[in-house]
Amino acid sequence: MQYVHVYLVNGRRENGLTPFDRGFAYGDGVFRTLPIYFGMPHCWGRHYRRLQADCNALGIVCPAEGVLRADIAQLVGNGEDGVVKVTITRGESERGYAVPPLAQPTRVVSKTALPNYPESHFSEGVTLFLCATRLARQPRLAGIKHLNRLENVLARMEWVDSQIADGLLLDDDGNVIECTMSNLFVRMGDTLVTPDLSRCGVAGVTRERVLELAPVLGYTAETRHLRLSELMDADEVVICNSLFGAWQVRHLASHAWPVGTLASRLREKLRKDDDAISF
Amino acid sequence: MQYVHVYLVNGRRENGLTPFDRGFAYGDGVFRTLPIYFGMPHCWGRHYRRLQADCNALGIVCPAEGVLRADIAQLVGNGEDGVVKVTITRGESERGYAVPPLAQPTRVVSKTALPNYPESHFSEGVTLFLCATRLARQPRLAGIKHLNRLENVLARMEWVDSQIADGLLLDDDGNVIECTMSNLFVRMGDTLVTPDLSRCGVAGVTRERVLELAPVLGYTAETRHLRLSELMDADEVVICNSLFGAWQVRHLASHAWPVGTLASRLREKLRKDDDAISF
Repeated sequence: MQYVHVYLVNGRRENGLTPFDRGFAYGDGVFRTLPIYFGMPHCWGRHYRRLQADCNALGIVCPAEGVLRADIAQLVGNGEDGVVKVTITRGESERGYAVPPLAQPTRVVSKTALPNYPESHFSEGVTLFLCATRLARQPRLAGIKHLNRLENVLARMEWVDSQIADGLLLDDDGNVIECTMSNLFVRMGDTLVTPDLSRCGVAGVTRERVLELAPVLGYTAETRHLRLSELMDADEVVICNSLFGAWQVRHLASHAWPVGTLASRLREKLRKDDDAISF
Repeated sequence: MQYVHVYLVNGRRENGLTPFDRGFAYGDGVFRTLPIYFGMPHCWGRHYRRLQADCNALGIVCPAEGVLRADIAQLVGNGEDGVVKVTITRGESERGYAVPPLAQPTRVVSKTALPNYPESHFSEGVTLFLCATRLARQPRLAGIKHLNRLENVLARMEWVDSQIADGLLLDDDGNVIECTMSNLFVRMGDTLVTPDLSRCGVAGVTRERVLELAPVLGYTAETRHLRLSELMDADEVVICNSLFGAWQVRHLASHAWPVGTLASRLREKLRKDDDAISF
């Protein structure tokens, strides 16, 4: 199979990765995925701050913002749309888990096309699959967008129906956590609830933005444990990520929610690059 | 820093890895590490069968045994000693967790030097560190030697004292599971107990061999949940892996076990390549 491979390793197209890179050997790294609109990385500052925080949580030295911005500028043409993925690993080491004291992080920036989502996902809402794969509770890694993503891969293997937009993931206690590639919010009256991610899950940039936008839309935001039965009883359910913004969830297994406007109201706000105003 | 990088990607020295390899992007793959003595991969058949089983558990197509043997032969000179690491990933794909229906697995075989362990680890036994990092319970991944190894990395970062041979890992219920790079056995009278790995941990080839050797040495083998207090009260404790065989554990935090002979008796048996006789 052929893929369009456009990427830089440590700023250079001619560099490759070796199996001694700890990203490959152990998943010892972090990443972020963000859209490029008209040549500009959307909400870059937020993504960079999350990269920094995630690197910090793992004890990886995060490259300077300007270095990553220069890589992106090298890959993305003027006025171009696309998706940029930035990966930072701990770098190369000898075989073995021990971290070399002077590990030099590896940075990889790759560019792919914007996904071609069905228009109906935006206009009518989406169907979720309820995954049997449960997320393990690991407080040391919770919230971090790290490279250990086998749970997401296994969960994504559970369905093939292209009508399904994403798969809902619970933890092993049955708490609702997220979807395989998105975070989740439920509206209960005037309250927007998103699952607590202190034991598992990935804290996405769009989740952070929705938490901040909630009061603007007249809602109180709450981050807490969420049961599947509460999700089923919610007035509205939306999923969100940096690429599609927000989608209204209409179906999960045999359950249906009525038509709602939360996702489209969120998308309208999310379209704006709010970096300048919120930081 | 410079490392000796001797490896083949899909059988060729000139191949590199791209960030689109799912081993790098998601840790979507498995590996095994084994010693080479006099140019021969030790217990190769067992390692290959574990690679096959682990690939199978993740739905990855494992390359044929002859293909991997040919890679090893290409890297390892006649009569040479060393360590070979074999990694199989699901191969390259577009961005996103979905597995392409025709994914072509990537195989990486790398060669490094045999580790230079202190002689005292063999003659006097070793000290273990009790890690604060706990292993998350994920039955879907338990036992598999997959590439999602951040827990091991974090645990290994907890100590720097070079006198410490390995770190003991418990699960989040406080059960003893393994060490960061080895499996563990405790002797209680005539019984050798090794932790149940149905919820977390890596099922190593040497653990499998010790379970088979137990009756030969006059012990009954048991695989079950093991509490830290039982470990402390055990007559002997040993850790084992494919590279060092078995080491007698003498110290864990302030606890000490007396001199014992279990590790040296196991090493004597483990030295033999038992593939021909046991399968």
